[in-house]
Amino acid sequence: MNSNMERPYVVGIDIGGTNTVFGIVDARGTIIASSSIKTAGYPTAEEYADEVCKNLLPLIIANGGVDKIRGIGVGAPNGNYYTGTIEFAPNLPWKGVIPLAAMFEERLGIPTALTNDANAAAIGEMTYGAARGMKDFIMITLGTGGGSGIVVNGQMVYGHDGFAGELGHVIIRRDGRLCGCGRKGCLETYCSATGVARTAREVLAARTDASLLRDVPAESITSKDVYDAAVKGDKLAQEIFEFTGNILGEALADAVAFSSPEAIVLFGGLAKSGDYIMKPIEKSLEENVLNIYKGKTKLLISELKDSDAAVLGASALAWELKDLKE
Amino acid sequence: MNSNMERPYVVGIDIGGTNTVFGIVDARGTIIASSSIKTAGYPTAEEYADEVCKNLLPLIIANGGVDKIRGIGVGAPNGNYYTGTIEFAPNLPWKGVIPLAAMFEERLGIPTALTNDANAAAIGEMTYGAARGMKDFIMITLGTGGGSGIVVNGQMVYGHDGFAGELGHVIIRRDGRLCGCGRKGCLETYCSATGVARTAREVLAARTDASLLRDVPAESITSKDVYDAAVKGDKLAQEIFEFTGNILGEALADAVAFSSPEAIVLFGGLAKSGDYIMKPIEKSLEENVLNIYKGKTKLLISELKDSDAAVLGASALAWELKDLKE
Repeated sequence: MNSNMERPYVVGIDIGGTNTVFGIVDARGTIIASSSIKTAGYPTAEEYADEVCKNLLPLIIANGGVDKIRGIGVGAPNGNYYTGTIEFAPNLPWKGVIPLAAMFEERLGIPTALTNDANAAAIGEMTYGAARGMKDFIMITLGTGGGSGIVVNGQMVYGHDGFAGELGHVIIRRDGRLCGCGRKGCLETYCSATGVARTAREVLAARTDASLLRDVPAESITSKDVYDAAVKGDKLAQEIFEFTGNILGEALADAVAFSSPEAIVLFGGLAKSGDYIMKPIEKSLEENVLNIYKGKTKLLISELKDSDAAVLGASALAWELKDLKE
Repeated sequence: MNSNMERPYVVGIDIGGTNTVFGIVDARGTIIASSSIKTAGYPTAEEYADEVCKNLLPLIIANGGVDKIRGIGVGAPNGNYYTGTIEFAPNLPWKGVIPLAAMFEERLGIPTALTNDANAAAIGEMTYGAARGMKDFIMITLGTGGGSGIVVNGQMVYGHDGFAGELGHVIIRRDGRLCGCGRKGCLETYCSATGVARTAREVLAARTDASLLRDVPAESITSKDVYDAAVKGDKLAQEIFEFTGNILGEALADAVAFSSPEAIVLFGGLAKSGDYIMKPIEKSLEENVLNIYKGKTKLLISELKDSDAAVLGASALAWELKDLKE
């Protein structure tokens, strides 16, 4: 009955625009074997899936074979949990709707679930990380863009169509910055690595204060440059983080009014900018949140290692899977 | 085993600032008996609970006795589902935390659940109304204030503390109108009966267009006056609804990015203003929503009769209750 005993491992596959990373994970969240291939360069999704399986299968065999695997979890941009498909992902090589979960199931005979990368990160955090034991929390990923995974009553919020949890696209500044989605003022245009760089360019252009950031060509400024300058005591760089954290806190205050989570977990490069960004977020969240929520929502940083998080997150999805024959 | 057969009825109690209405409801959502008392005027919550039970018990007895009742559901402002308590409700006569569910259980020996009125409305809509069969929807109540009840995966979103779903208090205009909660720009300061009246006063003061609304003393204008004027073809009144609907559509677009609901159900006086408000909401929602959600979210009006909705909503909560001895 207890399949976790008979099948002690899960597989996590993280599909990024550049690399596809996969690994075998045990119940403690240890990656016991992993490898990767390039995501692009295959004429069809079928050939891509063949190549993933060709590289993954030896790892599985070396660790006891297919019978030891509980399931496969896949994290991918625009992944739809309900259908197991990737749908119109702008940063992946395949057009239209790709039934990737079914492709892996067919090739390996292992039940496979798929969701978007931010949801996978949330499930990873709930299974192995900072949100262990929590029934209500929100994961915010602050990478190139801004994503989110929302957990309510211990369950992922997928919505009626599988696409819930796009907090990077709530409008935080009406008629604000133009977003890649075509609208204006989306949260991710301010609160993401790209958003921080954009703020830096705006501030440098609008003001005349001295700043270490003026040594970097404006168009190539990254959030890493801003962080490095902030660490060296650069006031302008620190202000950029304050501005960013302040806006994120405003957005999180609205998110709290939605699902009143026990914690908000921040993940991704920006979350690693330490107090420069965390203090302003915390302050802004507390200032902006409705009275009844004040002091109740923990603000946490992901406990998963950056290098492991994507595979762990994807893998965590697989613990809930049933055997194909069940 | 099937307690719904043995116990065919539930009781709904709706606690408002002025009246407490209660009724016995069958599985089809028919109120087979009901009555009410004044909410205020009792020295203590205990005496209030005594009075409710004194008036409710004869109805129960007339319909087969306590053994026919599956449970009691209570809807009340600031109701906390987890604890069965009403907590610091500004519009109710009792101070502090009142364990009202336990009080009714003690007095009547019937299992009792309690939640806030907007959540009760959502459960009522899911059980008897426009959201029957839906697993993901958002109920927006547009009364004096603005409330919400959010359902995800077929379950109410209560949050970790029981206070989730305060969409009336998301900030839709940064530094906007002062709200009763002490913050600025909350949705309910624009999108509620009070908000519409406020908009009317602002617009009448700022502009010089002729309007039927100029016949009403500014301080006594209600959303009903605005509706009546709109029906008579008053352009300014119609614009006020457009302004209101436009803002609500913006807020709903953000809510969709959160839980991607199958439908948003509008309830309360304002929702009855027909196309004057529904068309602008619909238009604004579609204009403001992220691409992937476009055309997917139904905008519905509550199917519950205003006079019955509060008792039905509260009663619906009781179908999920287990026997006290189970």
